[in-house]
Amino acid sequence: MPIITLTTDFGQADHYVACMKGVILQLAPNAQIVDISHAIPPHDVVRGAFILREAFDYYPEGTVHVAVVDPGVGTTRRLIAASYDGQIVLAPDNGLVSLLHRDFALDELRAITNTRLFRQEISSTFHGRDVLAPVAGHLARGVGMLNVGPLIDQIEILNLDPPATLSNGGIEGQVLYVDHFGNLITNISENDLAATVGGRPDLSVYVGPLRVGPLRTTYGDVKTGEIVAIIGSTGMLEIAINQGNAAAQLRAAPGTIVIVR
Amino acid sequence: MPIITLTTDFGQADHYVACMKGVILQLAPNAQIVDISHAIPPHDVVRGAFILREAFDYYPEGTVHVAVVDPGVGTTRRLIAASYDGQIVLAPDNGLVSLLHRDFALDELRAITNTRLFRQEISSTFHGRDVLAPVAGHLARGVGMLNVGPLIDQIEILNLDPPATLSNGGIEGQVLYVDHFGNLITNISENDLAATVGGRPDLSVYVGPLRVGPLRTTYGDVKTGEIVAIIGSTGMLEIAINQGNAAAQLRAAPGTIVIVR
Amino acid sequence: MPIITLTTDFGQADHYVACMKGVILQLAPNAQIVDISHAIPPHDVVRGAFILREAFDYYPEGTVHVAVVDPGVGTTRRLIAASYDGQIVLAPDNGLVSLLHRDFALDELRAITNTRLFRQEISSTFHGRDVLAPVAGHLARGVGMLNVGPLIDQIEILNLDPPATLSNGGIEGQVLYVDHFGNLITNISENDLAATVGGRPDLSVYVGPLRVGPLRTTYGDVKTGEIVAIIGSTGMLEIAINQGNAAAQLRAAPGTIVIVR
Repeated sequence: MPIITLTTDFGQADHYVACMKGVILQLAPNAQIVDISHAIPPHDVVRGAFILREAFDYYPEGTVHVAVVDPGVGTTRRLIAASYDGQIVLAPDNGLVSLLHRDFALDELRAITNTRLFRQEISSTFHGRDVLAPVAGHLARGVGMLNVGPLIDQIEILNLDPPATLSNGGIEGQVLYVDHFGNLITNISENDLAATVGGRPDLSVYVGPLRVGPLRTTYGDVKTGEIVAIIGSTGMLEIAINQGNAAAQLRAAPGTIVIVR
Repeated sequence: MPIITLTTDFGQADHYVACMKGVILQLAPNAQIVDISHAIPPHDVVRGAFILREAFDYYPEGTVHVAVVDPGVGTTRRLIAASYDGQIVLAPDNGLVSLLHRDFALDELRAITNTRLFRQEISSTFHGRDVLAPVAGHLARGVGMLNVGPLIDQIEILNLDPPATLSNGGIEGQVLYVDHFGNLITNISENDLAATVGGRPDLSVYVGPLRVGPLRTTYGDVKTGEIVAIIGSTGMLEIAINQGNAAAQLRAAPGTIVIVR
Repeated sequence: MPIITLTTDFGQADHYVACMKGVILQLAPNAQIVDISHAIPPHDVVRGAFILREAFDYYPEGTVHVAVVDPGVGTTRRLIAASYDGQIVLAPDNGLVSLLHRDFALDELRAITNTRLFRQEISSTFHGRDVLAPVAGHLARGVGMLNVGPLIDQIEILNLDPPATLSNGGIEGQVLYVDHFGNLITNISENDLAATVGGRPDLSVYVGPLRVGPLRTTYGDVKTGEIVAIIGSTGMLEIAINQGNAAAQLRAAPGTIVIVR
């Protein structure tokens, strides 16, 4: 069963996601269709790029990922098919694959231009349904990447937030993402820590002016309601409150400065 | 793999949808179960009819759609199986199929009465789980429509909003639906426009007293934050704000008058 | 196709659920993955136990249920595999299976310790992805329960709310759960009623001081907007407002006293 994933800003109340699934199933009735997220905030390409990158690593070769956060739908922006480490992503050429592009090995990059793989009528506002879904269906049933369109060598890459700043004295980074639990996922990686202050018993993490304490292993290493800094499941420094909501209680958000000394 | 879709007002927090899926999988373990929407506002049969109709067109022949927005569950209202263009819908007889009935070719209409296809114990408040889910499972594994119950020739059809009013001078319609993006989907179709003012370069669209401007092709034809009128992906006139939320910013809702002149 | 269900407090916005599904599909590409709920309130093990128990009954033998509401992830709490009535549950040993344990026949109880079934790198904060998902994948492809780890005979069982109090004069219970519709599901069962005041025509149900009236059969037995007491689809006494929201209108919540006289 071929796997097709969907990452969109469509929400799950309207019929939009179901239209895409119907189109896919017409072509690939045995597809495993997996919703990665449909709760990307409307038009938030950066968030879409983040969620797509975080999920990507856990899928097998041959997976086709369809990503639609597409404020420029119907304008001159292209649609692209990019293959990284044996998985394919179909997306608008607006930076949505920027983090995949940074973190995985590019196999092949094509513009999606072969209208024979599209639905017969193409709306100007829903290329997810009329172009990307049918192309995904065709790929899932064995049509090769080379059929989607010509090779290209340039795509839109987002100006992402600057990486954390490392020095001998420590690291200055920021909150990158706040998850459903209110956990603060930062742009400071486990490797960043290892390369600077990692392993030092007197290491301290600060969120804004607030001292969180040393690096611990898991949420339950502090009492319920207390703040804790750990390496989270994404491999990045994460600040949480054990059984609480760190974002709400610390009034932190993407962009809040995080320092390790 | 047979396709079974679900459209309900159950939300996705409770166990209700999962109970239906379990019942279906007991009978049809290979079914492709697709969630169309579980976010129909509670008891809102009109919204359910709209979402079901919009998704229906994208599914292949043989699909079984289960729709449950059923404030009359357990009362004397019937359950029906209706086949349109080779797809089957199972639903309470409360108008939920009104828009399918208007827009697709009816093949066959039956009351669901064959208790041998039901779960053994039938609750009085969850026929989705105890009747419609198992009937869908049986249909998916090859039981014929004729086994669900007798042919009928009358079903409940909703008094839908009046269609848009067309004249030589223009069209008066209204907002039918507000989607996740805040886009205003109206009851004025592309055909309505073609039959009246379509193609005229001096055409203007108004939402209430506000002049939106001429008809354009896609959201990105205006600057970010500006209002735009287009033919949306449903084939209906749609008013949006490029990368904004038209419903919130224009304080528009279903029923708001839209005029094209 | 083996069935694997997921019940978590992860929400559906982040990548967490999709990571688990990717891990499962790497091992069991033909699995039927069913979302029971990802809207368990964060860390609410009691709610998770309730939802899991309500859905469980509708799944066939051989189903593997993965449940992750796990505030103690990464601490010394164990992970367990429990088989009830031929279905398997994988969960942290924190009481999440308490209601299954009370209501279904235990076949076998094991600690999950066989690291050869885990992902190679185990984070300290996402055992759902790194341990439970791959173990579910292995079980789905035919690995036997005996391979997950040693038999155990004690697991954490929650101090659940006291059952309803029965006497000749009636029953005193409470609201256990408020569903998506605002319906109040109580801890008073159909059997409790049958054993005491059931069938008496002068039976009255009270929510706090408010007299709801006699027991009826379904929501539509009262007028729109009126309060009604019925046996709901879970087999428990339920208080609802026909086409309204009982929790909001009666200001009732889990713990609100319900009396039948």
